[in-house]
Amino acid sequence: MLHNNLSINEKNHLALAGVDTVELAHRYGTPLFLMDEERIRYNARVYINAMKKYMGEGSKPLFASKSCCFKRIYSIIAEEGMSTDLVSPGELYIAKEAGFPLENAYFHGNNKTDEDICYAMDSGVGHFIADNREELDAISRFAGERGITQKVILRLSPGIDPHTQAKISTGKVDSKFGTAIETGQAMELVKYVLTLANVELEGFHCHIGSQIFEYSSFSDAADIMLRFIRDVRDECGYVVKVLNLGGGFGVRYVESDPHIDYEANIKGLGAEIDKLCAELEMERPIILMEPGRSIVADSGVTLYTVGSVKTITGYKSYVSIDGGMTDNPRYALYESDYSILLANRAGDAPDLTATIAGRCCESGDLIQEDVALPTPVRGDTLAVLVTGAYNYSMASNYNRIPRPPVVMVKDGGSYVAVKRETYEDLCRNDM
Amino acid sequence: MLHNNLSINEKNHLALAGVDTVELAHRYGTPLFLMDEERIRYNARVYINAMKKYMGEGSKPLFASKSCCFKRIYSIIAEEGMSTDLVSPGELYIAKEAGFPLENAYFHGNNKTDEDICYAMDSGVGHFIADNREELDAISRFAGERGITQKVILRLSPGIDPHTQAKISTGKVDSKFGTAIETGQAMELVKYVLTLANVELEGFHCHIGSQIFEYSSFSDAADIMLRFIRDVRDECGYVVKVLNLGGGFGVRYVESDPHIDYEANIKGLGAEIDKLCAELEMERPIILMEPGRSIVADSGVTLYTVGSVKTITGYKSYVSIDGGMTDNPRYALYESDYSILLANRAGDAPDLTATIAGRCCESGDLIQEDVALPTPVRGDTLAVLVTGAYNYSMASNYNRIPRPPVVMVKDGGSYVAVKRETYEDLCRNDM
Repeated sequence: MLHNNLSINEKNHLALAGVDTVELAHRYGTPLFLMDEERIRYNARVYINAMKKYMGEGSKPLFASKSCCFKRIYSIIAEEGMSTDLVSPGELYIAKEAGFPLENAYFHGNNKTDEDICYAMDSGVGHFIADNREELDAISRFAGERGITQKVILRLSPGIDPHTQAKISTGKVDSKFGTAIETGQAMELVKYVLTLANVELEGFHCHIGSQIFEYSSFSDAADIMLRFIRDVRDECGYVVKVLNLGGGFGVRYVESDPHIDYEANIKGLGAEIDKLCAELEMERPIILMEPGRSIVADSGVTLYTVGSVKTITGYKSYVSIDGGMTDNPRYALYESDYSILLANRAGDAPDLTATIAGRCCESGDLIQEDVALPTPVRGDTLAVLVTGAYNYSMASNYNRIPRPPVVMVKDGGSYVAVKRETYEDLCRNDM
Repeated sequence: MLHNNLSINEKNHLALAGVDTVELAHRYGTPLFLMDEERIRYNARVYINAMKKYMGEGSKPLFASKSCCFKRIYSIIAEEGMSTDLVSPGELYIAKEAGFPLENAYFHGNNKTDEDICYAMDSGVGHFIADNREELDAISRFAGERGITQKVILRLSPGIDPHTQAKISTGKVDSKFGTAIETGQAMELVKYVLTLANVELEGFHCHIGSQIFEYSSFSDAADIMLRFIRDVRDECGYVVKVLNLGGGFGVRYVESDPHIDYEANIKGLGAEIDKLCAELEMERPIILMEPGRSIVADSGVTLYTVGSVKTITGYKSYVSIDGGMTDNPRYALYESDYSILLANRAGDAPDLTATIAGRCCESGDLIQEDVALPTPVRGDTLAVLVTGAYNYSMASNYNRIPRPPVVMVKDGGSYVAVKRETYEDLCRNDM
């Protein structure tokens, strides 16, 4: 199947990490987010070990919290010794509540408010990934008030478009994030940072986009960033120690996506970086990456119950499910690809091509079009694969639909990591 | 200004219903959803009175809950004597909690689960807008178990594309909603419904899309639907009493959108319906409409605080704010137009063209592009106008950003209708 934690058992049911998903649907109800705990740990270890091995001591992955953020995730990655990046005070709060060691955390965001900055400093967040001058001024001021020196990595845009979809391509010069190298503005900002009190410039950050299946995009970015590090050394006499290449590698959502070997790619990227550093006559900096999707996506499966099957004569067929854009807005936002099957008849041959429609009163509430399935009936369990990233974290209560629970599958059993929202939760703050 | 509840006061601040928005931003913090209570009531009254006057006794608007759903909205529309449509058990729960008279409610949805159907029946919801055969079977069964007769309006697709954007056009034959008239499937389903026990077929429903600025799209739909009502009468000997035309009229988001007079359009539509009924030799049915956007959108303003202004030499400028796609995903989803100004310098001449970027770690998190503004500085208050519909209701916690509060402006004062989410709220269900 698409990933090796998926299988079809003797009941013809889809299994995740060997656990029967249909039984889980009956036990916990639908819609239901499932996550395979061991897969998350495995992915984390692949990055941690490969980056240490091929990029040197200190080099490491930071878990991109925005891909999937709840307390249990932080305890899992902390147990694996993985650091994290946090993009908001809300993520920071949850990491803190989970007991995550915040000195290993990196605080992101293109618009940190004064309150955010103070909250992160007071919480002992080790590193800020600073986006802009206004933020740097505020960091300097608040660090000064606290008598601390705040470590800062500067977010830059290297001017690379890795030919991914426009909305998830973030390394281009024209971006809301960071400061462009190409325009000379990055060098200007570096010089400014070096004048600021209570700020220690640790390094530079870039993020060239998502769903990158080969390391050449990262080594292209590294090329630009390493040259910039050299230029800063030569022009300012200041050597930064850290290069954060942002993001991680792509994830296989559908059969036509390539298979990807993370370790081999990290090895290849490490060798490229070594070569570049030799060429530029500089020491290899500590390399950071920020995988989120490739840590959690393939651990996840979402289960739904089918409500109706509608064939419009001469047009097409719709299969309606009990979730949709409220638990997975990625098709509505990006027309993202997903693999879908009937969990309770997982091995049956397809005899219908249908659009999978959510339950929202909104035409755009679709999960996928042109899906081949054995014709479902009301009550069947439908599984959408590879939903561990950007599903729970992007879920909404549009149409006042409660968010599904997150159930972890482990050692043949299961446990609840996030409880299902209740109707009461939906209006808890209503006066 | 865009709507007559907006003005610039003597401090050069934007005022909503005469109340200084900058003072509200300071008092309640940002991001902040503001709503003008009197405007909601006014819009409701326009529809209620015009539909009664021009479409006869019994004809009425149903407030489309999905546009904006929290307890206080239900008490406002109930006080105005307006009925409502509900698209989920979550909306039903909130309406019930607010004490809304549910016998006046219409229960929508393309995928009602068995639990939803039972919950709605047990709550005394007056009317179901039934989407498909599986649902009708379930309604018949559960109504039978309860010894009741459930009133049902059948959702049909009239095959009209009102030339609105694909994602918000829902009356086309190829739709996840309803049953197509054109293919003959609607007539088949009607005959089936008439055989079902414990189900009373009240009428038919269609929804041809959003942002409709003239009644001709509605009268085109009415033409098709009335002919179908006649055909059902002739073929089945059954006369339905209700025609629900779905949706409401468009709302002016930007200066280039037309001004629209709801009363005049309802009058025109009423006259067209009368003409069609005379032509078809049938009695005029009760007409229902489902305005949501046109009841609440122009009551709303969202306030943000500016964090940074970034001009990329040779490219463009970005203004980052402390909210974004998490409180207003409509640009990310549909590239919707909005009017934007600096609330604290509302009358100043623009000297910058900028993209307004949200605070999410996501390139697509933009509120609008090419906005003309006086160059903002960190701390300025930015106002996005006409955000009363599909903003609070579509908000998410992506990046673990708490949802803003809803503050109602009324009689020169203000009050909280929905409290701001706390960080604690974000992980209330985390184990």
